[in-house]
Amino acid sequence: MSNQSFGLVEKKFFTLPCPLALESGECLDEVTLAYEIYGALNQEKSNAILICHALSGDAHVAGFHQGADKEGWWEIMVGPGKAIDTDRYFVICSNILGSCMGSSGPSSINPKTDKAYGLAFPVVTIGDMVKAQKALIDSLGIAKLLSVIGGSIGGMQTLEWSVSYPQMVFSAIPLATTQRHSALAIAFNEVARQAIMADPHWQHGDYYGGQKPDLGLAVARMIGHITYLSDTAMRNKFGRRLQDKNDFSFNFEADFQVESYLRHQGTKFVNRFDANSFLYITKAADYFDLTSKRTSEHQSLFAKALARYLVISFTSDWLYPTRKSKAMVKAMKKHDINVSFCEIEAEWGHDAFLLPNPRLADMLSGFLERMAKEYEA
Amino acid sequence: MSNQSFGLVEKKFFTLPCPLALESGECLDEVTLAYEIYGALNQEKSNAILICHALSGDAHVAGFHQGADKEGWWEIMVGPGKAIDTDRYFVICSNILGSCMGSSGPSSINPKTDKAYGLAFPVVTIGDMVKAQKALIDSLGIAKLLSVIGGSIGGMQTLEWSVSYPQMVFSAIPLATTQRHSALAIAFNEVARQAIMADPHWQHGDYYGGQKPDLGLAVARMIGHITYLSDTAMRNKFGRRLQDKNDFSFNFEADFQVESYLRHQGTKFVNRFDANSFLYITKAADYFDLTSKRTSEHQSLFAKALARYLVISFTSDWLYPTRKSKAMVKAMKKHDINVSFCEIEAEWGHDAFLLPNPRLADMLSGFLERMAKEYEA
Repeated sequence: MSNQSFGLVEKKFFTLPCPLALESGECLDEVTLAYEIYGALNQEKSNAILICHALSGDAHVAGFHQGADKEGWWEIMVGPGKAIDTDRYFVICSNILGSCMGSSGPSSINPKTDKAYGLAFPVVTIGDMVKAQKALIDSLGIAKLLSVIGGSIGGMQTLEWSVSYPQMVFSAIPLATTQRHSALAIAFNEVARQAIMADPHWQHGDYYGGQKPDLGLAVARMIGHITYLSDTAMRNKFGRRLQDKNDFSFNFEADFQVESYLRHQGTKFVNRFDANSFLYITKAADYFDLTSKRTSEHQSLFAKALARYLVISFTSDWLYPTRKSKAMVKAMKKHDINVSFCEIEAEWGHDAFLLPNPRLADMLSGFLERMAKEYEA
Repeated sequence: MSNQSFGLVEKKFFTLPCPLALESGECLDEVTLAYEIYGALNQEKSNAILICHALSGDAHVAGFHQGADKEGWWEIMVGPGKAIDTDRYFVICSNILGSCMGSSGPSSINPKTDKAYGLAFPVVTIGDMVKAQKALIDSLGIAKLLSVIGGSIGGMQTLEWSVSYPQMVFSAIPLATTQRHSALAIAFNEVARQAIMADPHWQHGDYYGGQKPDLGLAVARMIGHITYLSDTAMRNKFGRRLQDKNDFSFNFEADFQVESYLRHQGTKFVNRFDANSFLYITKAADYFDLTSKRTSEHQSLFAKALARYLVISFTSDWLYPTRKSKAMVKAMKKHDINVSFCEIEAEWGHDAFLLPNPRLADMLSGFLERMAKEYEA
């Protein structure tokens, strides 16, 4: 496949025409979503693909911004001639509600106070994030998305889209995700949140303009990174190799490469991410349980879903292991839903969907091609 | 088996006659070990069993102290008529070097300054801990221990004993442990240490007499607790059950039982444990690699070992999974060492060795009985 970059792209902003009614019962005014678009929408508006990002992602999925050399987070998959081919498809990616990359979130200005929201920002759910995205898609005049694609928390949004707005989703590709956040995943998120809230600079979320809870956020990110890597990946990548020395330091500096790696990931993260957004987005993931939410409304989870699904898991993902994907495939099959499932051999753990993987690229491009034909048929 | 408690027991103290030469090259003066003894040493001194405790344990393995009602940490296994039968065996347990339960550690008074050591306490290894224990066993006039038993970090000490002092160890029972700390285990420990060191009250370890880094230590303990439980154990114990309410709070209070459990474990821990000791003991565990240490001195790891081993792992332990135990059994078998291995079905994760388990109790009592006969033969 091609290595060509999409090239120059710009961040756009969309403000919802109406206040957003949230699952909590609260109402959020003046909701803005940052988003980017790639490629051209065809006349039939049948080639639109929505990509949903994970916890720390943003709308910048491919190409580069004017004056910046940082490529998008899924550059390997999205671009001309790539698996998600911007010569053929019209690709949209929007920053999720609650984040800090241009969309409304706890670091945004609260119109009622002219100060950053902090914890006055309402707790949002994956359902709320998707509801805001739907307003964006509506505003683009797209009645039915050719596909919704996302990994991890992006996969939760993908599933949510397919059951909340079944008429708008022709196909859906949930990657490395789950229909129901597990106790283990909640536990990791909770400890990460506690690390942030234990930082005295956190100040109950009211730290904007002052010192930020960087140390707490760095620890939170380190916890996350452990869950993104597999035991095997850690063994292969680091083992017990020492960092820059031949023997133990016999102090509390980083002795092992794995320690340096984690410290580096933690430190790097605080420069680009907001601690409160970390709290909000992990909470949304923890609340995510498509099974319990739907059973009261419908007979069963996927009873109203109309999408063709491609469900993909990775062998070494221990955060959302293959059995979670199999559970959702089973739930889909109960309703004779058209679903393909693939477990991809990968040793990089949960993060595998973000890394180069010819198998994944082939599956995405093949599935999308088939969907494009079926959509037009 | 019996439910009878050993009854009243008292904490004793032993001060090493000589400074302790540490693996780091440093020398530690006036080393004290807190220890407890149970049962009577027979005339042949052939019935002595040393129990080695894990990270947060202490010398108080069974019975109760005068005026206190808290039983020892392995009450279920140690006592009259129990698996480790104090009517038959003379049981010793000592608090490890670096800890805070009576033995010398960072919270002890530095004789050179008359203030708590803090980070002036030298970094110690599992080998150093065992070397100090050996001085205690020597002082009790015991030439050869009938058995050394320990789980987790206690298991590391057990292995270390058997290869460092082979003449003194007739049998050894390493439980839920590893001969080599993995990158994943190091990663968890490192993040826990970072949580402590990120707490402004930590003050580079010099917090004695002032406010303690309780919030950081609580987060560190929460990280530990995730690794002690298995995914299955969490699912069975908590699932997605909510705490004291019927719906989500839509704030950052604990919604799920698993969150409350972790917060409770964190808060409880800070009342009984020293944050610096947590740093020192986890560092010792991270440094533990019996394989690399020995290969320079001997042909191979267990070449000089003389002990009969009973190696036990637990199915749901993902911190030190069964394959780690199998690796050590394989290394032992290379040298025709008498080793029995058993993987016990248990859903409680790494902590399984601390919980009631008839299978484990039977294995321990049966093995010890056989060892007692062989020792005397």
